[in-house]
Amino acid sequence: MATSGKITNMLPSIRFRKAGHRKKPGTAPGTIEHIGERHMDEIKITVHDYDEEQIDEIPINKIQKVQPYLDAPSKTWVQVRGLHDTEKLKSIWNFFNLHPLIQEDIVHTAQRPKVEVYDNCIFFVLRLLSYSQEEQRIKAEQISIVLGKNYVLSFQETDIDHFKPIINRLAIKGSRIRKHGTDYLTYALVDAVVDYYFNIIEHIAEDIERLEDELLKDPEDHLLTEIHKIRREIIFFRKSVWPLRDAINTAIRDESEFIHDNTKIYLRDVYDHMIQVIDNIENYRDMILGLHDMYMSHVSNKMNEVMKVLTIIATIFIPLTFVAGIYGMNFDPGASPYNMPELSWYWGYPAAMAVMAIIAVIMIFYFKRKGWF
Amino acid sequence: MATSGKITNMLPSIRFRKAGHRKKPGTAPGTIEHIGERHMDEIKITVHDYDEEQIDEIPINKIQKVQPYLDAPSKTWVQVRGLHDTEKLKSIWNFFNLHPLIQEDIVHTAQRPKVEVYDNCIFFVLRLLSYSQEEQRIKAEQISIVLGKNYVLSFQETDIDHFKPIINRLAIKGSRIRKHGTDYLTYALVDAVVDYYFNIIEHIAEDIERLEDELLKDPEDHLLTEIHKIRREIIFFRKSVWPLRDAINTAIRDESEFIHDNTKIYLRDVYDHMIQVIDNIENYRDMILGLHDMYMSHVSNKMNEVMKVLTIIATIFIPLTFVAGIYGMNFDPGASPYNMPELSWYWGYPAAMAVMAIIAVIMIFYFKRKGWF
Amino acid sequence: MATSGKITNMLPSIRFRKAGHRKKPGTAPGTIEHIGERHMDEIKITVHDYDEEQIDEIPINKIQKVQPYLDAPSKTWVQVRGLHDTEKLKSIWNFFNLHPLIQEDIVHTAQRPKVEVYDNCIFFVLRLLSYSQEEQRIKAEQISIVLGKNYVLSFQETDIDHFKPIINRLAIKGSRIRKHGTDYLTYALVDAVVDYYFNIIEHIAEDIERLEDELLKDPEDHLLTEIHKIRREIIFFRKSVWPLRDAINTAIRDESEFIHDNTKIYLRDVYDHMIQVIDNIENYRDMILGLHDMYMSHVSNKMNEVMKVLTIIATIFIPLTFVAGIYGMNFDPGASPYNMPELSWYWGYPAAMAVMAIIAVIMIFYFKRKGWF
Amino acid sequence: MATSGKITNMLPSIRFRKAGHRKKPGTAPGTIEHIGERHMDEIKITVHDYDEEQIDEIPINKIQKVQPYLDAPSKTWVQVRGLHDTEKLKSIWNFFNLHPLIQEDIVHTAQRPKVEVYDNCIFFVLRLLSYSQEEQRIKAEQISIVLGKNYVLSFQETDIDHFKPIINRLAIKGSRIRKHGTDYLTYALVDAVVDYYFNIIEHIAEDIERLEDELLKDPEDHLLTEIHKIRREIIFFRKSVWPLRDAINTAIRDESEFIHDNTKIYLRDVYDHMIQVIDNIENYRDMILGLHDMYMSHVSNKMNEVMKVLTIIATIFIPLTFVAGIYGMNFDPGASPYNMPELSWYWGYPAAMAVMAIIAVIMIFYFKRKGWF
Amino acid sequence: MATSGKITNMLPSIRFRKAGHRKKPGTAPGTIEHIGERHMDEIKITVHDYDEEQIDEIPINKIQKVQPYLDAPSKTWVQVRGLHDTEKLKSIWNFFNLHPLIQEDIVHTAQRPKVEVYDNCIFFVLRLLSYSQEEQRIKAEQISIVLGKNYVLSFQETDIDHFKPIINRLAIKGSRIRKHGTDYLTYALVDAVVDYYFNIIEHIAEDIERLEDELLKDPEDHLLTEIHKIRREIIFFRKSVWPLRDAINTAIRDESEFIHDNTKIYLRDVYDHMIQVIDNIENYRDMILGLHDMYMSHVSNKMNEVMKVLTIIATIFIPLTFVAGIYGMNFDPGASPYNMPELSWYWGYPAAMAVMAIIAVIMIFYFKRKGWF
Repeated sequence: MATSGKITNMLPSIRFRKAGHRKKPGTAPGTIEHIGERHMDEIKITVHDYDEEQIDEIPINKIQKVQPYLDAPSKTWVQVRGLHDTEKLKSIWNFFNLHPLIQEDIVHTAQRPKVEVYDNCIFFVLRLLSYSQEEQRIKAEQISIVLGKNYVLSFQETDIDHFKPIINRLAIKGSRIRKHGTDYLTYALVDAVVDYYFNIIEHIAEDIERLEDELLKDPEDHLLTEIHKIRREIIFFRKSVWPLRDAINTAIRDESEFIHDNTKIYLRDVYDHMIQVIDNIENYRDMILGLHDMYMSHVSNKMNEVMKVLTIIATIFIPLTFVAGIYGMNFDPGASPYNMPELSWYWGYPAAMAVMAIIAVIMIFYFKRKGWF
Repeated sequence: MATSGKITNMLPSIRFRKAGHRKKPGTAPGTIEHIGERHMDEIKITVHDYDEEQIDEIPINKIQKVQPYLDAPSKTWVQVRGLHDTEKLKSIWNFFNLHPLIQEDIVHTAQRPKVEVYDNCIFFVLRLLSYSQEEQRIKAEQISIVLGKNYVLSFQETDIDHFKPIINRLAIKGSRIRKHGTDYLTYALVDAVVDYYFNIIEHIAEDIERLEDELLKDPEDHLLTEIHKIRREIIFFRKSVWPLRDAINTAIRDESEFIHDNTKIYLRDVYDHMIQVIDNIENYRDMILGLHDMYMSHVSNKMNEVMKVLTIIATIFIPLTFVAGIYGMNFDPGASPYNMPELSWYWGYPAAMAVMAIIAVIMIFYFKRKGWF
Repeated sequence: MATSGKITNMLPSIRFRKAGHRKKPGTAPGTIEHIGERHMDEIKITVHDYDEEQIDEIPINKIQKVQPYLDAPSKTWVQVRGLHDTEKLKSIWNFFNLHPLIQEDIVHTAQRPKVEVYDNCIFFVLRLLSYSQEEQRIKAEQISIVLGKNYVLSFQETDIDHFKPIINRLAIKGSRIRKHGTDYLTYALVDAVVDYYFNIIEHIAEDIERLEDELLKDPEDHLLTEIHKIRREIIFFRKSVWPLRDAINTAIRDESEFIHDNTKIYLRDVYDHMIQVIDNIENYRDMILGLHDMYMSHVSNKMNEVMKVLTIIATIFIPLTFVAGIYGMNFDPGASPYNMPELSWYWGYPAAMAVMAIIAVIMIFYFKRKGWF
Repeated sequence: MATSGKITNMLPSIRFRKAGHRKKPGTAPGTIEHIGERHMDEIKITVHDYDEEQIDEIPINKIQKVQPYLDAPSKTWVQVRGLHDTEKLKSIWNFFNLHPLIQEDIVHTAQRPKVEVYDNCIFFVLRLLSYSQEEQRIKAEQISIVLGKNYVLSFQETDIDHFKPIINRLAIKGSRIRKHGTDYLTYALVDAVVDYYFNIIEHIAEDIERLEDELLKDPEDHLLTEIHKIRREIIFFRKSVWPLRDAINTAIRDESEFIHDNTKIYLRDVYDHMIQVIDNIENYRDMILGLHDMYMSHVSNKMNEVMKVLTIIATIFIPLTFVAGIYGMNFDPGASPYNMPELSWYWGYPAAMAVMAIIAVIMIFYFKRKGWF
Repeated sequence: MATSGKITNMLPSIRFRKAGHRKKPGTAPGTIEHIGERHMDEIKITVHDYDEEQIDEIPINKIQKVQPYLDAPSKTWVQVRGLHDTEKLKSIWNFFNLHPLIQEDIVHTAQRPKVEVYDNCIFFVLRLLSYSQEEQRIKAEQISIVLGKNYVLSFQETDIDHFKPIINRLAIKGSRIRKHGTDYLTYALVDAVVDYYFNIIEHIAEDIERLEDELLKDPEDHLLTEIHKIRREIIFFRKSVWPLRDAINTAIRDESEFIHDNTKIYLRDVYDHMIQVIDNIENYRDMILGLHDMYMSHVSNKMNEVMKVLTIIATIFIPLTFVAGIYGMNFDPGASPYNMPELSWYWGYPAAMAVMAIIAVIMIFYFKRKGWF
């Protein structure tokens, strides 16, 4: 049940290579084959069976072993990690009698987040986002949750303990999660996924803030690349988050018996959080556009400043150089009294220097009045 | 009951550090812990008990002391200031039997404005905005209001007397607020919060106007930073204000018995004001974009002007300098009759000067026709 | 009943100083105090009492004098001009038993246009816009209309005869306005206000057209300021006009008995006109953005042209000047046969000139091929 | 019945001079006066009376002569061309008992396209667009159609045979148009108008394509004006076309007996075409914005290229000229051994030339590495 | 039944020449004439008759031969390839009794994708997109599907085997497609078309990624043209894809008996894929705009850099050249002691060189402080 250590590239789609749907045109829907990277060699199944009185955490290797827990009045959460052993997955799906489209969505891990109501269950597709400091990018993992009558079935691609805090809360006797049914557990899982979004938002917020500070100090070239990077992250983030809003709304409005009204109040709360996330994204989008505008304006200002320096120096010295050039001409004073008589005037040289100085002063005065200094 | 003097940083979120939701992913909802800055050491509870005949303002230290006022037919407003003493808050919540999600929303003071209907109350989350002259920025504080059958319960983070005018009106015998029920008081509180928005709007309007005047006079560099600052303020303001519109609409459409139809007419009025606020924000947003465009255009114009000066000076003098350079060459007139015979012509120097003058005049004439002067 | 001659500043809000709502946060709604400029010293009340047979126009000074007209089966229009004598206004409001919020809206003359249905009347708030040639700006005035069972009550800030044409039509025996009820009169007033919008639209259209022509001829600096001015006018205009569309729709869908179905057909027509106005505004907005883009492009083109002239002149003459500079060097031909032997060549000078000419021709040829001429 | 030959300016509104509504504010609605240009001196009335068996085309001069055709069971299309003889129009309107607002809309020929259901008819206002090659602009003409129980009444401003193909189809015995009722004829007229839009779309598409090709070859100044012109045409086109979509939808959803369900299937088809037209417009709008962006980018690129040439030439020759200037100085070698001893070195001149060559080579190498060549 | 080998230009409309609707204004709808390019000389009809037990693939040349298959209880798919033989098409249409508008839509192959419900069938118009590597552009082909009670009728323009995978699946005994009815087959065809969109999306994604990489390395001119090309492709793609979303929704909500509820679950899945496609397009649109912004910013940066080099060189050497020019003047030292005495100073030349060096150092220091290096 050991997993390979390297869990490198959970989200190739930040580079948008995968458009989320890989089957060859015309092949059957419901084709069972995981399309993402292989993160784990084996599939891990863990049963969390609990009611108000007791809680058990049992790793099992055959799905049939879950039967006694389902038969008991206690609530059962079957946590499946890893998606590559298609045979084992099929045995799980058949055991729970899942619709072929659910099966397809679980393994084709680039689904749009959604909530779908089937006859025997509600099916959640979520996208869990986390920021990887080492790789400097957002990673995504698909979480699929099936909420049946008295069980919750969750699938994830990797072995990472995303839901550790929930397992911890389950361990606390008398906690709300122990008192409520499987629908509340489902809510807790969804809520945990949404909570992760707030981490991403803070990461983006910090990046924007840092960029803004750097921009106000000195608009360097690399900022442009960073602005572009954040812009892409926001596009990617929006794509993952927007659909979930409607999906949760679907769950709230659902009339089936899977989700109780008490739990719907909590889902409404998650829905509010989703809207808050989306509000923030939209604001960050506005802000990153504002940053790009400011960057461009700074570049313009800087070029303007460069141009001014050039113009001031050039316009002062070009006329002066011309005057010097005049008196560097070699007309022969001996050939005519009109040929450069200034050269042999007594005050010729000082006068020429004075003329140049006057020209320079006039130029400087002109630029001052223009407000170029 | 004294509060610490320093109430500095009511709104860290203008820097967007707080995305409004801080709990660790997966922890239980309804975790009771204030996430904002600590503004007060102790919690102040004040009971305003009133009917048409009498009004009492009683500071209390234990929430149980409010019982006799609730039992009486008079209307009761329990005003709670400060959010850090979780134990005391819990005693208040339990006394009024508030839903865990309400409890969470009261202390997690970065909520989206909203109105939620529960079985035993209506819950308002508002965001009170004020402009701090010293800190040159908008400050925000969360106001939570619980409207029960015969009481209003309000929570705020700081000790500031935001609702002084309402308390003053309560003191006036025969005033409308004394005649109507607790729903009207709630309306008055919401209306006061919305009124504060108009102050912010006027502040933004004045800033925009001032920037516009400065821009028309002289587009300096610092204006860019100011435009960016207002842009951010508008983004922040929108984020706080937009959700309230829908929230008030929820309250108006609500079918529960907490808000009477008479009061709904007044809420409709607040709703109109909200739309007016939003209209103004959108206009200011358009205008600040217009200002940025105008700034950029002015920068372009200025660069154009600088370029013209450079070009005029350079294109006039460069050819002249060339001519002067020609006659500064040292070809030996003795070696050949073709070697610079001009140098020893009788009118050589005056002719050279005349040629230069003609070149200059042609250039100037050309620029005039181009409309560069 | 004379009014002060100076009616200068009907619309301070074009500078957006007034955000439309002035009461101190927390003060009571329904505070009765006019917030705009004082345009008239006294309030003028004029009664227009008419039916198919007769019409009377009676100035009155006490509102009680309108009672006999209301009692008669004829239709009655009470036209009130001026909003500063609060006492007199109060007597009118009390006489007609208007809701406190209506009272507030009448005097707080920066309301959003709206239509509200009350138990005893329908209340219209309109914004009448007119273009002042002298002040070169759009002026706004609030028109409030109360449509009761058998009366129309209209309020306006100034003494201007905006509704003269309607009074003229009332004077014509057999005109449609005489045959129909007070709801038709209300429609006629609203229609007149909307008609004024078309004047503004034509004014904006003419300005845009003129700007466009000037831009195509010569993009001067002042055009930028004018484009910005029109942009602001459009923003202001939109703000005044957009809400009226929904407001009229409210009146059309209204189920109360105040507006007959026959009149609703006419209101539908006004609604169509409103949509036409809005269509036009949106188009002008697009066009002014297009003009700004074109302005910026022209500036870019112009700078490009300036740059080309500079580059052509500089790149032709700088190499030539360098060649001239070479032969201006003073290396001593006596010290070595390699020191500038060209200077004493027989064809030295003509050869140097020829070299320069060839360089110039190559340059010009190069620029021609680049398409810079 | 002859018309003046000159039908020059069917659409002044492409220059947006007419905002579509000309009556003085406050004048009565339903004022009967044509506001457009006068295209015809007299009004032409043509009756097309047809059923499956026969078809008659009868020019009449008095509308009363249409009575026998209306009484007969055959279907009747009364085609009215020209709108200036108000008396004659009135006789037609009274004969068919049209609502005053219909009358107004027929002559005020700048209406928004719309469909309105009245008690005795359905009223269509359409805008027929055609591209005039000579005047290089889009021309518009208002087509008004009144569909009554057993007649169709159409009005147009000019004498142009827009509906010739329909008249031809009417002439074919057994054609679908002969078999169906007047509602199908109305559909055919609307369909013809929509078909004209596709011509405009192709014209715009060709212009965009041509511009694009020219832009890729050489971004000249006049392209900017052309881009702006197409942008305006698209704005104008959108304004004429958008409203028709909703209008046709109104006709489809209409419950009255004027349009049979069979015909609605055809109207649904027209509706699809309208959406296709609108899709295309929106795409062209996107594309013209893209073209403008590309134009601006090309201008930037070109300026960049110009700058590079200038910079390369200037930065190579300015240092060289400086070196030449050094050795053009006249320091007296006789006064000191340190005064320009290079001038009398044996290899002085060749060495100076070599230094210059090295400087030039270094510069060129530097620019090469920068990628400027 | 052989087809011409050259199938070159399936999509002229990427150049937007065809606006999708070609009939002359006013001609009858339902005109039967294919408007696209001629791809095949003859029309190929293939019948796929299948049930759970057996499958037959029979090429037929007369549509009447399909009758026995329709009479049998098995399901029948009539696949028609080629659209130019109008006579043969008519015989097919009449055989299946298709509505004239369906007939028109089948041959006018530039329809907007749509789903329409008729009395005897549901009619799908789809647009199949594929990327042609040779021609470097997206090709489009219209697929029309008629779903009747027990048959599916599909039309396509070319002979290409787009649906080969579906035919393969039909050949597998026990496959889902064999078990379900004709509605499931229709779903499979629609799903195949949508799957092709993902190929296009991947192609666009790869192009964007490649462009982004090149841009970060070196923003060359041709990138601008490529960005523009992708922008156009996205516009074209959107136009083809957007309408299908609503169309599929129409099919899902349809109440007729043609599509069973089981199949609607699958259609809902296709609908989700469509939304995913659209999400991706919108993101790519955002990204291509971002790329254009980045390109422009890079161009600005590059120009800025060029300007800096020019300015540094010019401002350093222009003053130096001026100093050299001073001492190149020929004032006669013999005429006055004030005439250029420096020239005969002992340290004159070294001092002049030192002055120049100091000027250069100051300049360089100044630029360093400005951060230009």
